[in-house]
Amino acid sequence: MSQHTQSPFPAYEWPEGKTSAFCFSVDVDAESPYQWSLPADAPVTLGQIEQRLFGPRVGIWRILDLLDRYEIKATLFVPGLVARNHPDLLPAFVARGHEVGLHGYFHEIAAETPADEFARALDESLAIFKSQAGIVPAGFRSPAWEMTPAMLAEVKRRGLYDSSLMGFDLPYTIDGVTQVPVLWAVDDAIYFKFTGAQTDRWPPAPQGGILEAWLDEWQVLEREGRLMMLTIHDWISGRAGRIRMLERLLDAVTASSDTWIATVGEVAAHHVSSVNRDRFSVPMRLPQASGPHRFRAAR
Amino acid sequence: MSQHTQSPFPAYEWPEGKTSAFCFSVDVDAESPYQWSLPADAPVTLGQIEQRLFGPRVGIWRILDLLDRYEIKATLFVPGLVARNHPDLLPAFVARGHEVGLHGYFHEIAAETPADEFARALDESLAIFKSQAGIVPAGFRSPAWEMTPAMLAEVKRRGLYDSSLMGFDLPYTIDGVTQVPVLWAVDDAIYFKFTGAQTDRWPPAPQGGILEAWLDEWQVLEREGRLMMLTIHDWISGRAGRIRMLERLLDAVTASSDTWIATVGEVAAHHVSSVNRDRFSVPMRLPQASGPHRFRAAR
Amino acid sequence: MSQHTQSPFPAYEWPEGKTSAFCFSVDVDAESPYQWSLPADAPVTLGQIEQRLFGPRVGIWRILDLLDRYEIKATLFVPGLVARNHPDLLPAFVARGHEVGLHGYFHEIAAETPADEFARALDESLAIFKSQAGIVPAGFRSPAWEMTPAMLAEVKRRGLYDSSLMGFDLPYTIDGVTQVPVLWAVDDAIYFKFTGAQTDRWPPAPQGGILEAWLDEWQVLEREGRLMMLTIHDWISGRAGRIRMLERLLDAVTASSDTWIATVGEVAAHHVSSVNRDRFSVPMRLPQASGPHRFRAAR
Amino acid sequence: MSQHTQSPFPAYEWPEGKTSAFCFSVDVDAESPYQWSLPADAPVTLGQIEQRLFGPRVGIWRILDLLDRYEIKATLFVPGLVARNHPDLLPAFVARGHEVGLHGYFHEIAAETPADEFARALDESLAIFKSQAGIVPAGFRSPAWEMTPAMLAEVKRRGLYDSSLMGFDLPYTIDGVTQVPVLWAVDDAIYFKFTGAQTDRWPPAPQGGILEAWLDEWQVLEREGRLMMLTIHDWISGRAGRIRMLERLLDAVTASSDTWIATVGEVAAHHVSSVNRDRFSVPMRLPQASGPHRFRAAR
Repeated sequence: MSQHTQSPFPAYEWPEGKTSAFCFSVDVDAESPYQWSLPADAPVTLGQIEQRLFGPRVGIWRILDLLDRYEIKATLFVPGLVARNHPDLLPAFVARGHEVGLHGYFHEIAAETPADEFARALDESLAIFKSQAGIVPAGFRSPAWEMTPAMLAEVKRRGLYDSSLMGFDLPYTIDGVTQVPVLWAVDDAIYFKFTGAQTDRWPPAPQGGILEAWLDEWQVLEREGRLMMLTIHDWISGRAGRIRMLERLLDAVTASSDTWIATVGEVAAHHVSSVNRDRFSVPMRLPQASGPHRFRAAR
Repeated sequence: MSQHTQSPFPAYEWPEGKTSAFCFSVDVDAESPYQWSLPADAPVTLGQIEQRLFGPRVGIWRILDLLDRYEIKATLFVPGLVARNHPDLLPAFVARGHEVGLHGYFHEIAAETPADEFARALDESLAIFKSQAGIVPAGFRSPAWEMTPAMLAEVKRRGLYDSSLMGFDLPYTIDGVTQVPVLWAVDDAIYFKFTGAQTDRWPPAPQGGILEAWLDEWQVLEREGRLMMLTIHDWISGRAGRIRMLERLLDAVTASSDTWIATVGEVAAHHVSSVNRDRFSVPMRLPQASGPHRFRAAR
Repeated sequence: MSQHTQSPFPAYEWPEGKTSAFCFSVDVDAESPYQWSLPADAPVTLGQIEQRLFGPRVGIWRILDLLDRYEIKATLFVPGLVARNHPDLLPAFVARGHEVGLHGYFHEIAAETPADEFARALDESLAIFKSQAGIVPAGFRSPAWEMTPAMLAEVKRRGLYDSSLMGFDLPYTIDGVTQVPVLWAVDDAIYFKFTGAQTDRWPPAPQGGILEAWLDEWQVLEREGRLMMLTIHDWISGRAGRIRMLERLLDAVTASSDTWIATVGEVAAHHVSSVNRDRFSVPMRLPQASGPHRFRAAR
Repeated sequence: MSQHTQSPFPAYEWPEGKTSAFCFSVDVDAESPYQWSLPADAPVTLGQIEQRLFGPRVGIWRILDLLDRYEIKATLFVPGLVARNHPDLLPAFVARGHEVGLHGYFHEIAAETPADEFARALDESLAIFKSQAGIVPAGFRSPAWEMTPAMLAEVKRRGLYDSSLMGFDLPYTIDGVTQVPVLWAVDDAIYFKFTGAQTDRWPPAPQGGILEAWLDEWQVLEREGRLMMLTIHDWISGRAGRIRMLERLLDAVTASSDTWIATVGEVAAHHVSSVNRDRFSVPMRLPQASGPHRFRAAR
């Protein structure tokens, strides 16, 4: 075959003789996205806040127990507000051996947050992580998985890895920042988030079909030497039925000793210290509007 | 493990040597939510009202027969309007041994109803329950499962239990009120409600996948000693296919003698008279808007 | 048990020793609903009209062949416009032994059509049925399954049966008109209608789960002695995958000789000439708005 | 049976003793539809562009490898912008033996594009195909599968085939242009397209049910001698789980030697040179608005 018929990227090199990788990540959002989206003059109601407080009260502990049963170290991304409101969380996560990462302060939405507010949110969160658990997080995940060039610059300035984009199903370097990519297909919220509010866009999906899809995703990622980044949420997957689903997924993932089950931070550290760092490096590419009647203008 | 690694809540204590609990609840809405949502100047049409009257005509009787076959006593929450329009319902429910509970008068939506109207709706409903069936209900369930602090205060003032929130998958005490929680995952309406109106947000889900999800939910709730609160509606689950689904669910739930199958009122009475009442007690926590540009303001 | 614990309605009596009934109905809409909904100044595009013309070109013939294979006589409800645009349809339906019924002229939507227009649409359609196929239809089905009191009066005046409402899962009499009810759960359009337009509300559902739900629906309707009214559309279920689904459904329905497989007109004729006519008779009940702040006003 | 009871169209004649046909088509959209829909003043974000660049970076190469494993020659429809931004694509497609076809320049949406812009987009795309890969494409597929009479005239003037409409499940001739029809049921985007934007209309469907539906579609198309036009997208079906789904589909399609697996161009060339060309020929039929209160006006 000529050079044209090859993918522009070679195989990814994993450590310790492993041939694929798996990360278990938790976005510990609890009440923060709800409070961010709440209009200041909204009527005071109790339904959604109680549903979300189920996370810190019950769900997250059930997830921690699940991780213990499978002997998996996870990465838990925690907004500053959630740490402040529930000060037992960060110390418990660290005590049980997991990585903790930044996830905004108020679960700020990228398009609604000026760059200086984003920087301040990062620094305030860093201070809370330090004071509550005595640690300095190595990584950041954007609330709602959206990034701007300004955010990426702030992340870069602080030497953090990022875990918010989806340009590969492998770790990559974008504009000099280590990116450990997420993946909508194996996120729980898009399938199961439901609170009964008018903002719900669909009812919770039955787990059976989604589990089958996740297993298919894993089967091909594993055989092709890729990274599967599972992401769940405390108040969503801490519910009973989803725990059963996660057990079935982890039964499959932990069946092979060829897979590197690692925290997001461990994957990022491997990337930056290996040949992958330069082999899987792309510039930041900005989208350009080309819509109605741009044809002539663009030429 | 250090104290930090433990859930802040201990195990729940069930009565009679049982290790988990199951409630079968019915929100007997019939035409009431439709009439509440109908604009006063809407064209007079027959489609949706006939679909909903299927409940009092056929569906609810089919559900009562199902309950008899499985020897289960249910709790039926009935809006005052539905009792008034269908005066054979409350007496039949009581005669067959079920609990009846309050569910608003017009199926009022919390955010659209002033506190004094809510109080009046409660009292008018209590009067109808008394006159039609000679009983005083012990509990309340909010239409659409939304509560306000004012509503919770009215419920507390009348010594009622509440069954509208989701802060645990166990009974709990919130601001002094006994809460027997509901659970979206095992509600029929979010999956199956469909009338052909523009307000429908999705078509009815096929029952097979939902049943499988409900069985998973039950499997983990049962093994962890929790409460499963099933909720169905007369005009939705009184249809043939959903009866078949409920049979399969009840086959599983009734298979173990370790599960306490009880009315919501029995569960509430147990809670308030046991150690659980104080162990599972939380204050009412009000959501606080933290959205766009609240970062500086909030600090 | 006391009288209160009984359903207010007795068992339905089927003819010929049968214990349940099944109707196969087709709403032969083709291009008519699209043209009705099209703004007069919409850009002229070809995508949706071609998708719908697939019905008269291919889909309906495939459905007729399916009916022949299972030896089932169906009822095909045909808008006047569709008969006029495709004059080979009505004669073919009659020649192959099926019943044909009225379905509006332009597939008029009830809430958008004054009573006198509705009456005129009925009469114009009757004229086309007479001239093209030499027959006088016995029944009417409302486009989009919505009725108004005025429409019901026009149907009554002409001595037609109606097949548009859902107040029972048995034939019934409403305001003196014979009603052979439809059922959203076993309609193809709500699951499978999709044209790629912005007005689509969800993608086509995979057939497997829907078939399983339809079989459950049938299982309970059959054992309880009810009527299953299947409804499909030429351009939707004339597609290959849905034909396979219908084969599997008909395999189940035709397996028992206890089921009366009949046209909608045969079921209506049986109803009106049997004891069921009076036993299953209800008045027309009009919905009354009771929404925000009607509590005091209504008392 | 009388002539009325027959479908107006005879059986389609396939070449080489084959009895049915299958095309594997890819709409290589990458970032183009996003950029077309992007408002000029939208905030600059990185989430969606990275998700779409996954196509040219990873997804399309994975699809090419899949095609090699099954020894299938596909047709890849490529917008001019995508070819310009990713100049390695067209040469690689041609080198690996696949057909390439036109797909607009900016992925223009039909209803938003004047006829002269559409013509210019065609010609500019033709120029890019010539300069990058030295070829003149034989066919066109409309972005978003919508056509106007003006577009069809431009396609006709250049002697191209079209693959954008759905009036048959066989190749046909419309207004003199060869049409190799597409089919929503076996398009990946309507089920799986999801980017996390507010414009998403539903979450990705689990593949299992969709695969089962595709296999049913294929089973009936194959036995009835029809054409199955599979369509996938680089950034959607280049993801791991969908590759697994496609493998299972191709296992079924390639199991029979009676099926003609061909490029869209080969199917179009056969159509135009066979008896089918005139047997399956229809005029262009324009939709006519008949909506509210057109009844009297139309007569």
